[in-house]
Amino acid sequence: MPSFRVELPASPHDVHIGVGLLARFNEMLSAARLDRRRTVIVTDETVGGQYAAPLLEQLGARASLVTVPPGENSKSLATLAYLYEQFARLELDRSSVVVALGGGVIGDLAGFAAATYLRGIALVQAPTTLLAQVDSALGGKTAINLPSGKNLVGAFYQPRAIIADIATLTTLPERTFREGLAEVIKYGAIRDAPFIDWLETAMPQILARDPEHLTTVVERSLRHKAYVVTNDERESGLRQILNFGHTFGHALETASGYGNYFHGEAVAIGMVVASRLSRHYAGLSADDAGRLAGLIARAGLPTRMPDGWRSEEFLSALRHDKKRAGEGIEFVLLDRLGHALLRKLDFDRILAVA
Amino acid sequence: MPSFRVELPASPHDVHIGVGLLARFNEMLSAARLDRRRTVIVTDETVGGQYAAPLLEQLGARASLVTVPPGENSKSLATLAYLYEQFARLELDRSSVVVALGGGVIGDLAGFAAATYLRGIALVQAPTTLLAQVDSALGGKTAINLPSGKNLVGAFYQPRAIIADIATLTTLPERTFREGLAEVIKYGAIRDAPFIDWLETAMPQILARDPEHLTTVVERSLRHKAYVVTNDERESGLRQILNFGHTFGHALETASGYGNYFHGEAVAIGMVVASRLSRHYAGLSADDAGRLAGLIARAGLPTRMPDGWRSEEFLSALRHDKKRAGEGIEFVLLDRLGHALLRKLDFDRILAVA
Repeated sequence: MPSFRVELPASPHDVHIGVGLLARFNEMLSAARLDRRRTVIVTDETVGGQYAAPLLEQLGARASLVTVPPGENSKSLATLAYLYEQFARLELDRSSVVVALGGGVIGDLAGFAAATYLRGIALVQAPTTLLAQVDSALGGKTAINLPSGKNLVGAFYQPRAIIADIATLTTLPERTFREGLAEVIKYGAIRDAPFIDWLETAMPQILARDPEHLTTVVERSLRHKAYVVTNDERESGLRQILNFGHTFGHALETASGYGNYFHGEAVAIGMVVASRLSRHYAGLSADDAGRLAGLIARAGLPTRMPDGWRSEEFLSALRHDKKRAGEGIEFVLLDRLGHALLRKLDFDRILAVA
Repeated sequence: MPSFRVELPASPHDVHIGVGLLARFNEMLSAARLDRRRTVIVTDETVGGQYAAPLLEQLGARASLVTVPPGENSKSLATLAYLYEQFARLELDRSSVVVALGGGVIGDLAGFAAATYLRGIALVQAPTTLLAQVDSALGGKTAINLPSGKNLVGAFYQPRAIIADIATLTTLPERTFREGLAEVIKYGAIRDAPFIDWLETAMPQILARDPEHLTTVVERSLRHKAYVVTNDERESGLRQILNFGHTFGHALETASGYGNYFHGEAVAIGMVVASRLSRHYAGLSADDAGRLAGLIARAGLPTRMPDGWRSEEFLSALRHDKKRAGEGIEFVLLDRLGHALLRKLDFDRILAVA
């Protein structure tokens, strides 16, 4: 079982990755040496139906379950209020633990609830999707949505442990599994050319969900994320490179009318657009750009912007990007596979090439 | 104008105390060197009616006003949601500033909104009540209430500056002014015997709201709070002494049926109870206990528990105190005026003396 430590000065914590960790969850929690006067597992109906009963049995009388509906709509103030009331009913105190068991929605929602209940109680991230395991569970970003926008309310709040059970990946729907690969490929693109080489070779076994290959995928991804986050917890510099592919990706997710892209799918397309921009404005070779697009396609992910994407709505979403800097956008580009840089591009230059 | 710096390693900030600082607010904000792409003043209808118009005029086109109803009921999820929607409508970004202009309710509510909007945007505390100026504006505690309890949801979030205009104290209703004196006396009781001496002499001028005396009261109180908070930001040890008088005080506020104590009034009574416990369990002299009760009375604050206070509801509130430790409570006691200590007392010992 690979384990490593995220060495954040104020909140160091362990990451455990392996097959069957949910069956050893009590032991994993003990390793984190948490007071556990009460433990509350927050999950959604889908994940809860698969894993909650044996987990509760394992954790014993001081553990409880709180379930919310699956899907992005649960990242709301209303669901947050529901969690708070459940926490109060269960009499959580400063010696209690919240376990976020699920994908990115649960990690964000339960994470924000734990960050703010009693001004912060212990949080354990137990991600069950590939996207959450390779990305969102690590880094301390928690958030909910408002009617006026996604992730507008949140907190930086580090978990006390991250427990990624690879076995949960085997039951994911195909599309949910594949979207996680977009973030995996991203780490290779921005920081790790040899990882790209390995992914090109290993993709068949990964898509077949071979546990050993998946363990490697998750561990190597999380180590990259941990490095970046440890060196820039509050996203003031280095951490921005994690947004590679996310500028066009977010705009695709925000603007409606293009079908309903999953986050990873939108990022996949965004990475292809960003590598096209990288060819023109950062010297990325045609060969490297082609390899990246090819790998994304072999992961079963989309690589092309939808027809007629230059709508008013899309361009407005692009202009409101959080990375906006005056009349342009701070764009993450590649000068070669495995190396990212930030470059401010104005909208004309972006749209001339995208 | 007294100014000093709160030397928190991750979030040092200045405190300015003086008469007429709201009239120089733009200059005060400039001193804090904040990006101010937008500035939003959050206040309540009462305070806003007195101070908002000239402030807005002073701050110019990039400043806006958001007003909520006065009173504790505004520390709710519903009002928080309203603030978030206003922040979104005003397009606040990470270069924007929230000014909390008002008493403790506004500081807690607007502070929590600023702490969580976009995972935290700049906050300036501009307290306008004595209680907020000597206590709640400094220390980074923000919170809202839930139906199941007060301050159950919140964050530790430090302001970028604290601007306490002494002039705002002159228009406070008498009872609101006097309740703030409870926390002032508390600092003397737990840390500063010479301050108690001074308060005994200066009380007539303080009650007459002489600006020079009030400036001294606020500055000396905030310096004590700053010292304690700087040495224990997250309330793991030293900071607990700030809870002197608050155990019985909170229970009085929580249990209904005793009339409606203001926070400072409940703390005043709680300090007298705690000094009685201190006589029995910490060696406080009868003379010191008498001086403290006398000073509280001269500030126009209550000193006696209400008749018939040993109700089920009160005792239940006491038992659910956050400072509960097993079968007892970690109580803040005095061994002499000006020096506090923590002692675990079981309920029998508490109730035998209280």
